[in-house]
Amino acid sequence: MDTSVAPHLAALRQRMAAFGIAATVIPHTDPHHSEYPADHWQLRRHLSGFTGSAGTLVVTADSALLWTDSRYFLQADRQLAGTGITMMKDGLLTTPSIEQWLCEHLPEGSTVGIDGMLFSITETRTMRAALDKAGIKLNTAFEPADESVWPARPALPECHIYIHNLEYAGQSAADKIAAVLANAAEAGANAVFISALDEIAWTLNIRSNDVEYNPVATGHLYLSADTKVLFTDPRKLTDEVRAHLKEAAVECRDYTDILTFLGSLPQNVKVLLSAGQSATNVEATLGDRAIVGSSAAAMLKAVKNEAQIRGTRAAMLRDGVAMVKALCEIDTLVRKGETLTEMDIPAILTRHRSQGELYVEESFETISGFGPHGAIVHYAARPDTNEPINASNLLLIDSGASYLDGTTDITRTISFGQATAEQRHDFTLVMKGHIALARAVFPEGTRGHQLDAIARMPLWKEGKLYLHGTGHGVGHFLCVHEGPQSIRLNDTGAPLLPGMITSNEPGLYLDGRYGIRCENLVLTVPAMTTEFGRFFKFETLTLCPFDRALFDVSIMTPDEVNWVNDYHARVYNDISPLVEGATLDWLREATKPL
Amino acid sequence: MDTSVAPHLAALRQRMAAFGIAATVIPHTDPHHSEYPADHWQLRRHLSGFTGSAGTLVVTADSALLWTDSRYFLQADRQLAGTGITMMKDGLLTTPSIEQWLCEHLPEGSTVGIDGMLFSITETRTMRAALDKAGIKLNTAFEPADESVWPARPALPECHIYIHNLEYAGQSAADKIAAVLANAAEAGANAVFISALDEIAWTLNIRSNDVEYNPVATGHLYLSADTKVLFTDPRKLTDEVRAHLKEAAVECRDYTDILTFLGSLPQNVKVLLSAGQSATNVEATLGDRAIVGSSAAAMLKAVKNEAQIRGTRAAMLRDGVAMVKALCEIDTLVRKGETLTEMDIPAILTRHRSQGELYVEESFETISGFGPHGAIVHYAARPDTNEPINASNLLLIDSGASYLDGTTDITRTISFGQATAEQRHDFTLVMKGHIALARAVFPEGTRGHQLDAIARMPLWKEGKLYLHGTGHGVGHFLCVHEGPQSIRLNDTGAPLLPGMITSNEPGLYLDGRYGIRCENLVLTVPAMTTEFGRFFKFETLTLCPFDRALFDVSIMTPDEVNWVNDYHARVYNDISPLVEGATLDWLREATKPL
Repeated sequence: MDTSVAPHLAALRQRMAAFGIAATVIPHTDPHHSEYPADHWQLRRHLSGFTGSAGTLVVTADSALLWTDSRYFLQADRQLAGTGITMMKDGLLTTPSIEQWLCEHLPEGSTVGIDGMLFSITETRTMRAALDKAGIKLNTAFEPADESVWPARPALPECHIYIHNLEYAGQSAADKIAAVLANAAEAGANAVFISALDEIAWTLNIRSNDVEYNPVATGHLYLSADTKVLFTDPRKLTDEVRAHLKEAAVECRDYTDILTFLGSLPQNVKVLLSAGQSATNVEATLGDRAIVGSSAAAMLKAVKNEAQIRGTRAAMLRDGVAMVKALCEIDTLVRKGETLTEMDIPAILTRHRSQGELYVEESFETISGFGPHGAIVHYAARPDTNEPINASNLLLIDSGASYLDGTTDITRTISFGQATAEQRHDFTLVMKGHIALARAVFPEGTRGHQLDAIARMPLWKEGKLYLHGTGHGVGHFLCVHEGPQSIRLNDTGAPLLPGMITSNEPGLYLDGRYGIRCENLVLTVPAMTTEFGRFFKFETLTLCPFDRALFDVSIMTPDEVNWVNDYHARVYNDISPLVEGATLDWLREATKPL
Repeated sequence: MDTSVAPHLAALRQRMAAFGIAATVIPHTDPHHSEYPADHWQLRRHLSGFTGSAGTLVVTADSALLWTDSRYFLQADRQLAGTGITMMKDGLLTTPSIEQWLCEHLPEGSTVGIDGMLFSITETRTMRAALDKAGIKLNTAFEPADESVWPARPALPECHIYIHNLEYAGQSAADKIAAVLANAAEAGANAVFISALDEIAWTLNIRSNDVEYNPVATGHLYLSADTKVLFTDPRKLTDEVRAHLKEAAVECRDYTDILTFLGSLPQNVKVLLSAGQSATNVEATLGDRAIVGSSAAAMLKAVKNEAQIRGTRAAMLRDGVAMVKALCEIDTLVRKGETLTEMDIPAILTRHRSQGELYVEESFETISGFGPHGAIVHYAARPDTNEPINASNLLLIDSGASYLDGTTDITRTISFGQATAEQRHDFTLVMKGHIALARAVFPEGTRGHQLDAIARMPLWKEGKLYLHGTGHGVGHFLCVHEGPQSIRLNDTGAPLLPGMITSNEPGLYLDGRYGIRCENLVLTVPAMTTEFGRFFKFETLTLCPFDRALFDVSIMTPDEVNWVNDYHARVYNDISPLVEGATLDWLREATKPL
């Protein structure tokens, strides 16, 4: 309930009026198209009070609207109350796109102003095409994050950069740069501009703490055969890091020099930009020197090498031990009737995880939603919402950690012995989808959207559904959400290749009642080669029991029951040597056959 | 084995040289983007000898290549032998697209020449963009079908047009025109140009016999509030048809007047074109008056009204009776050891179908493939390939009919009591996919590509696959293949809506051994409405037993067995009152529970 945004919106409207801007669009991102931008770029939060990780604000002289997706419908409802900002529910058939809304509400001849460093080439093209049709102009040089609008704007992040050791990364920065440039050459380019922070971190084997949960450094990267430059704040660079970069022939320049540098490149340089990630202002600066294509690094980064896979397996084992210890502790406390709240859960998880080797930080903000809060897809408990946990409802915990050797992301939905038949039924439907996807086999070339409905069908058959994607790519000690592959309704064009790590997380959310999500990470691996070609399958990496008490075996096939039993046997086999006492007893019970 | 194409190719190359054309692309279509073009537009067949319904020929000064898809790999292999034309297998990961091939093989600065009436706006844009990058020019005014290349070119079709009665069509032409213009207005247009022959036939409730199997008339249609013109050969129009068109305020002009007419439209007319169907030369003629979007009629045509659904159910019953009689006859003859060949099958089917009321013609060329020929996806038996049918292998029959009240399309794979365990296993895998799709339930907004893998997964799990789509839209006494919906790997953007009729036809093809395909038509119907919205499902329309002897119950779930038994009970219930004697006995056996 934040009404303090009114003066910020008023200042913005004053600035819009001064520049003849009828509407501005404020995305939740940075010049690197980050999912979790640093505070310096949290203008949308500053203007709206909404803290969700997805949501775009549109402001005109007399209205303000926030588009956000189903994960945040309830949260936005709460946080926008009293601000005068209208929530627009993205993903519903009845909700217009931002472009549609602008075309319907702005007069012909008016101008939409945006910060062209925060919009990708594709986004800008789409918006421009839609506005063009309605005779509305687009100005990409409007800067809404002005001093007058945001006087106390946080500084750019200044965290030190550190080296991600070859032991974990598995490939040198020089080798990666060569592979990226080879990809660029295939697209007809002799240079690459990379603004995505995780791609820069991956390419150079560097990490930092500029962004909460994502161990990346703010910067831009330019690569060509003879010139390789990291644009970043020089205060972030230690001598060790400078030496490491020099080994890969990478020099350093100031972060703010990027457009000047790109603008001064000779005309025979052809720079590959990513249509979906590079800023429209970068394309405008390069002009004829820009080749707009797809990222030269994304696919290389997504396909993990042997060292990364080995590391991830080791991280999964440590993470599984921590999860089992935490779940045992939570289960024991609740059953004893001790006071435990949603906000205690992140602390318990972090306490156990941080005892593991190579632990760095949580990989995203833990979701700990009890009962109705579990139905808020990306709920984060706060003092004003914090609920005590007891045996009367389900607890949904979605959490993960970044280890030097890998990233985890796991969701478990747990009961405390008193689940209703309906809850068990719904949980089992979700698990039927999870299992169907976990057991899928598919030919080379298959893309995630082709498999998505496999996980949804058991719910659909009963008129139930979830609106989020079924699976996202997961970085290696990088962003917990990464592309290019995903398992969702829409085609992202990227095939599922051996070495990719993706989540498998169907769910079900009943407003005001409870939420269910069951998430493991899976590795794409070869399944077989036949006269029809190569086939792949998923190997589940996550090691942690699902709540046995929530399965309704009467609606499961023998294959589904066997999958759960086999998985639990594997979890017991791998985790049991690493826990003892009450935890071991709990694990033994938790992994018994259904 | 047709080597007589050499002089045609030589003449084409001479013409190309005269016009400075380095390569030409000859598609298998007409100015209406028809799947089955009339003889007048069968230039690709004339130049290559290949008769398949999909395939594009590329000719340069020293090479000729034919791109075709998996349905035709074996047929093209046979028909291209000796012609010097190379087959390019479309759909394989290793096969370049035509554009890629052209860019790799033509020198910079050379020109590709195409007939711009035969390429849609989208196709031309895609080709131009690709060629541009390689510095290759595109000339859309090249006419390869010249007198010198094709002296004996067949004339334009001249068949009479007749009226499709309102009793079957269910909606008047005037009402349909109003609906089409309303769709156009939504796209910002005040007029529509329709070149797709089935859309014209649907809009005006007219039919003809210009194209084999497709009851359509060659023409173009222009619609605006005050001007409605059908461009067609005046010899096609009877007084009755002229009066019918006049009722809907549609006047007639000569077919060849279309570009002149469009070119003379005032500048304030905005004509909606279909990016995927309208010819690039039409867009060029209209210039600023063109609004390129999607078809204003396709979705209206795809969603069948009550009369059309009622008619289709009646047609399915008659078609089922014919199929049962034909299958009984074929089964009896083969088991008796009588001589029966692949080429006898179409005649048997047509004999039984044509005894049904409202029968017009077959809806496509019957596929009757015995043993290895069943593995040729769109095989049509010819005297030089015709094989006797016996109990040693499987027979695949894919056939259908156009009735005045609906169109059918059905594939059955049958054995004669001696199927191998492997054949039964494979057949059952295909049926598991068929059943999974038939039983699917899905939320409003679901598109066919999201369901496609449901039908493929049982095969994929064993490293098997088919390369064709799982389902295509089916017209109402129109084209047996129609859009916009489909169930295939790629997203066509069209949701599956109640009233749409789509095929469900997974298959498996083992080169040189046997082919399996199991096809019914399904109607999308409402399933339920819940707190999550509306859900749809499929109702199977086709009424004909699957071969009981081919099911391996040991690998089926109880749900799958129940589905087959329920379906067979329904088939028996509906068909048995309409057959007698030996046919009734055969049907009773054929529909017994598994």
